[in-house]
Amino acid sequence: MSAKLVPVGLSNRHLHVSRENLDILFGEGYELTKFKDLSQPGQYAANEKVDVVGPKGTLKGVRILGPTRNETQIEISITDGFILGVNPPVRDSGDLENSPGAKVVGPKGEVVLEKGVIAAARHIHMHTTDAESFGVEDKEIVGVRVGGKRGMIFENVLVRVHPTYALEMHVDIDEGNASQIKSGDTLEVIK
Amino acid sequence: MSAKLVPVGLSNRHLHVSRENLDILFGEGYELTKFKDLSQPGQYAANEKVDVVGPKGTLKGVRILGPTRNETQIEISITDGFILGVNPPVRDSGDLENSPGAKVVGPKGEVVLEKGVIAAARHIHMHTTDAESFGVEDKEIVGVRVGGKRGMIFENVLVRVHPTYALEMHVDIDEGNASQIKSGDTLEVIK
Repeated sequence: MSAKLVPVGLSNRHLHVSRENLDILFGEGYELTKFKDLSQPGQYAANEKVDVVGPKGTLKGVRILGPTRNETQIEISITDGFILGVNPPVRDSGDLENSPGAKVVGPKGEVVLEKGVIAAARHIHMHTTDAESFGVEDKEIVGVRVGGKRGMIFENVLVRVHPTYALEMHVDIDEGNASQIKSGDTLEVIK
Repeated sequence: MSAKLVPVGLSNRHLHVSRENLDILFGEGYELTKFKDLSQPGQYAANEKVDVVGPKGTLKGVRILGPTRNETQIEISITDGFILGVNPPVRDSGDLENSPGAKVVGPKGEVVLEKGVIAAARHIHMHTTDAESFGVEDKEIVGVRVGGKRGMIFENVLVRVHPTYALEMHVDIDEGNASQIKSGDTLEVIK
């Protein structure tokens, strides 16, 4: 059987904002403007950036990804957490209960979030046809092998299947640096 | 068979200095002073710190580890490399050929190194009796399993056996953050 390969995308720190928070940060009725499309259809990096402020320090110019979501979610690395002075739990997107908050500062106003700062758990987006080809199902846990001097096997990799997804594995910058992988590398999925 | 466990030590950025470079950085005949002992017998963190300067930025207050060595070696993470503007190769200690250099600034002088900046390859120190107990030999490559949400198997882990070593696995901060391990955690060695 041939190896099942998945391209990697490294996620740098970013945030998703709610409509309500965007009104405060950039002004009532403000619309995000597109910087560039992301690999997942309909998702884009916005031109808009904000500062994220924690008890110990600030991450300046953190990019917003669009479109807006129901809740504001700030995704940072563990390394970023040391700069802010918060310890982000490793969570799947949208799972924000009991996560730490932060202050978000935009050009028109600021928001103090009670929760929403997480380190994203690595995961693989798959279109429905990819999942069939890989022989996996939505929410299945797989392993992913990285070669080289810092070779490793990522365990506990969540597969997310949806007809709107494009095949891509998302890891954060800490994981990329620890394994020396770069966006666009292809890795082997292990069942 | 019971699992073979090894305690972990996270290595933050640090440098080892040659006698010749120490003379320039801190003054002729200067002797390092001990801040605290490290787990490896005879090795210590010194009170002395220097700034490491790269083309893009500076790492301030990088701690020297003693005693002095034949060659100055600066061990940083890939993340640190982005701050400095150098791309450290992942190397075993002492393997400095064709590695990038940096400027090192001490209180009495500065040194421009032609080479010596590396990201340390993870490895396990073992006393000779540990190696017998683990059933491994010097320079053998093993795997190490990490549990939890960011669970992974580190492959390509070099075992170094010597009668002066104490049992400990060394990883850098990127690897620690990517796998959510901390100094003192114990991990399972996989042959």
